[in-house]
Amino acid sequence: HLPLTVIAGPCALESRDHALECAAALKEIAERLAIGLIYKTSFDKANRTSAVSPRGIGMKAALPILAEVRDKTGLPVLTDVHESGQCAEVGQVVDVLQIPAFLCRQTDLLVAASQTGCVVNVKKGQFLAPWDMANVAGKIRASGNDRVLLTERGASFGYNTLVNDFRSIPIMARKADCPIVFDATHSVQTPGGAGTTSGGQREFVPTLARAAVAVGVAAVFAETHPDPDKAPSDGPNMIPLIAFESFVRDLVAIDRLAKNRVSLYDFA
Amino acid sequence: HLPLTVIAGPCALESRDHALECAAALKEIAERLAIGLIYKTSFDKANRTSAVSPRGIGMKAALPILAEVRDKTGLPVLTDVHESGQCAEVGQVVDVLQIPAFLCRQTDLLVAASQTGCVVNVKKGQFLAPWDMANVAGKIRASGNDRVLLTERGASFGYNTLVNDFRSIPIMARKADCPIVFDATHSVQTPGGAGTTSGGQREFVPTLARAAVAVGVAAVFAETHPDPDKAPSDGPNMIPLIAFESFVRDLVAIDRLAKNRVSLYDFA
Amino acid sequence: HLPLTVIAGPCALESRDHALECAAALKEIAERLAIGLIYKTSFDKANRTSAVSPRGIGMKAALPILAEVRDKTGLPVLTDVHESGQCAEVGQVVDVLQIPAFLCRQTDLLVAASQTGCVVNVKKGQFLAPWDMANVAGKIRASGNDRVLLTERGASFGYNTLVNDFRSIPIMARKADCPIVFDATHSVQTPGGAGTTSGGQREFVPTLARAAVAVGVAAVFAETHPDPDKAPSDGPNMIPLIAFESFVRDLVAIDRLAKNRVSLYDFA
Amino acid sequence: HLPLTVIAGPCALESRDHALECAAALKEIAERLAIGLIYKTSFDKANRTSAVSPRGIGMKAALPILAEVRDKTGLPVLTDVHESGQCAEVGQVVDVLQIPAFLCRQTDLLVAASQTGCVVNVKKGQFLAPWDMANVAGKIRASGNDRVLLTERGASFGYNTLVNDFRSIPIMARKADCPIVFDATHSVQTPGGAGTTSGGQREFVPTLARAAVAVGVAAVFAETHPDPDKAPSDGPNMIPLIAFESFVRDLVAIDRLAKNRVSLYDFA
Repeated sequence: HLPLTVIAGPCALESRDHALECAAALKEIAERLAIGLIYKTSFDKANRTSAVSPRGIGMKAALPILAEVRDKTGLPVLTDVHESGQCAEVGQVVDVLQIPAFLCRQTDLLVAASQTGCVVNVKKGQFLAPWDMANVAGKIRASGNDRVLLTERGASFGYNTLVNDFRSIPIMARKADCPIVFDATHSVQTPGGAGTTSGGQREFVPTLARAAVAVGVAAVFAETHPDPDKAPSDGPNMIPLIAFESFVRDLVAIDRLAKNRVSLYDFA
Repeated sequence: HLPLTVIAGPCALESRDHALECAAALKEIAERLAIGLIYKTSFDKANRTSAVSPRGIGMKAALPILAEVRDKTGLPVLTDVHESGQCAEVGQVVDVLQIPAFLCRQTDLLVAASQTGCVVNVKKGQFLAPWDMANVAGKIRASGNDRVLLTERGASFGYNTLVNDFRSIPIMARKADCPIVFDATHSVQTPGGAGTTSGGQREFVPTLARAAVAVGVAAVFAETHPDPDKAPSDGPNMIPLIAFESFVRDLVAIDRLAKNRVSLYDFA
Repeated sequence: HLPLTVIAGPCALESRDHALECAAALKEIAERLAIGLIYKTSFDKANRTSAVSPRGIGMKAALPILAEVRDKTGLPVLTDVHESGQCAEVGQVVDVLQIPAFLCRQTDLLVAASQTGCVVNVKKGQFLAPWDMANVAGKIRASGNDRVLLTERGASFGYNTLVNDFRSIPIMARKADCPIVFDATHSVQTPGGAGTTSGGQREFVPTLARAAVAVGVAAVFAETHPDPDKAPSDGPNMIPLIAFESFVRDLVAIDRLAKNRVSLYDFA
Repeated sequence: HLPLTVIAGPCALESRDHALECAAALKEIAERLAIGLIYKTSFDKANRTSAVSPRGIGMKAALPILAEVRDKTGLPVLTDVHESGQCAEVGQVVDVLQIPAFLCRQTDLLVAASQTGCVVNVKKGQFLAPWDMANVAGKIRASGNDRVLLTERGASFGYNTLVNDFRSIPIMARKADCPIVFDATHSVQTPGGAGTTSGGQREFVPTLARAAVAVGVAAVFAETHPDPDKAPSDGPNMIPLIAFESFVRDLVAIDRLAKNRVSLYDFA
């Protein structure tokens, strides 16, 4: 088992300066903790709760910035795509293409992402059982790309609430035979729960991340921001950048222990 | 309150002959029952459970057939779209553009559908609370089109199971101020429940449709097929065409009663 | 199929005068509508949300009042029991013993209720699948009593929320082979949702009751009160007595239609 | 924070010899691992899925055996009660009285258990939100006993399925201000899922237990048996006794780390 990787960054790409600043800060944290880190940011919030929510700077403006972040920091970069036509172009400047949870069964999008040759990270739909993600990974592999990640980010639990079933981690790992990511910040969303935006429960991020790492995951995904309460999206669930290092340090310690345990009686 | 309309047809557009045959049969039923009927069929099953499931004849082959069905039968036609780029072209040959449930929050798709001027029918996401559909209707109206329908088709209830919360009908009607459709055949899907396809519980279609009509809906959506067990998709939940007329006749009787009742104590 | 019966009354037995007054009013409504009516009231709210909630007048004080209501009005009477030791005594003054939903799997209570020879109405647990209620009915029958009713009153749906799956009505009817009751007022509870009490959504009672009757039930259970907002329990979901007759009149009309329909294609 | 305690034993008290043998084996494991251990067993399975399931040896036969286990091994003993009348007598031979999840809101039972002066461990109902357990703890405290434990054992998630929401651990700890137990073996039940018995997913017990300990709990509850597949109840989810020590050793290591972490950003 490889040691824990972290996928982190602000939810939305706000500007060139903001992106470079966040990426530099995260790179320093990763170096101090001696962990792998993938920089995450989005150029378009394509499924906002309402029409009045801001969407982001758009693909054309974003691609040169993503390329510059990758070049300047040396960090691998991840971003999400929303329609099949975006994949080829975006795939040229990032390392990981991410498929949003609502879109995890859109065959054309999965195939187009697969064909870029990038790593493809698919978030499990809030409406899907973990065993059904094997078919999703299969759509990507059938298009010739075996570099698939699957991400747990919560299942619908009544209205405006998500729950993480941690059985999903071993289930997806075994059924889809690929590394599993835990998305700690979207798992605490209260979707639509704040009227025209989604709410969030930032205080539960460490709780759920620790649980996931103790179960055993390849990576933790966590959005972070210098000032979450002023962020254009997902502010209520992002981690303040100032707290990010101690948050990750705890996870690294648990990860080391979890991956070294020897158990006669286990799912694996 | 207008009398009940029915939206019906085979899940997938299988061929020109099949489509014309089904549409002619449904037109006869609608005339005998003196109800409005919208012909529904799909040119692409864009989010099949797995890569091995058949997807359909595709948009290019389908559009002339949809146009011919509309011309020959005089029935209004409904079909679903999956990416924003499809809307303008598809909107020229149909009366209603339908947004699939998984895609009900994709802003670009909603806006593009809205701008065609067609009626837009959005299926409520399995992951959404009914009150959150007001924001979805708002995205369409903000693009200049007020002809919105919202469809109840089940909410995620644990794994591989949907449940209809019939409170969603008055909630969506009031919050989004638009006609509500009940999708009786997708509501009995067991998503992903049959391994590489979705299962279905055809036997509960009349149960749920009667409940919805008694609550009060503008339309019932129900897929039907001459031979469901041989259909390329959704066979387990479609109604055999031979049983369709008696199914609808029951609903029409309940609808007449439901819309004529006078109640001092009600949600309306 | 027998015509619809109504089970109605105030949630809690507040006093002799209150009980006699409510029962007389309900008897008049039942006579005007020519329907069967069973008077329902509880002597003990044994599982209130918190220790500060009032519990009721208790069994000893209640039994003579229940007997008097039955004698004076001629209405059959239903009340609920909470421990096995109560059944024999309570069973002497009522016609129907009701088992609360939380207790629907307590074998001793079911057996003791069964042995009274009363009709036993078991509410489906919020945590149980409808098909599992066949085992519950089996516990009663195995103790020598075949007069079982099963009641749909909602399933847990996330936190503080219930949802009615109307498939449960035909499923329980077939699997347990007994008449099914729909509890329209507890189905709109928001359990624990008001801090130290349960909330409720009175405005959805007619919606859900109409749906249940259209599906086909033997009886509708609905709590009613002259002044719900002053009731000691379940006020937020009870129907004002003044609106009860028009509420039931609608249901009777739908019931007549639902039970007369002939459908070639149905669950039955 | 005190180090992790384990609550363990076979689901049902099968016989004097079986109980003494299991308790002796568990005592040895606890000594080798230097942890606190409470012996758990039940004299009556009072809410079995169906009437044909065995219920146990009964209270009268069990009490002397429980007393003997406590005397001979020196282990504290826990057992569950089902009706208020049982509490006083059972409370004389055990250290912890446990309230089953279905009964967690039965006021009389909670009060009677409270009045014994024993520690009272209440399992969170499958139908309850974690914040609502504060009212349950309040019922016990209002009766003069402050020694309350609350146990997470899963929430209803669709039909025949439970899910653990690990946010419940910090929520209950804060709202009810008491130690929290994680029940690792009942959390993997598939209630009613095996027809006339509950099924179970033993393979997920270590996954969920590790997650709970990483979050931070006072105790893990886990049923174990020398030969689970021959046990009269809960066999599918019990841990084989032979694997118990390595299972607990992993948890102890994670617990030590979890309780020593210092985090600037946390729920506590």
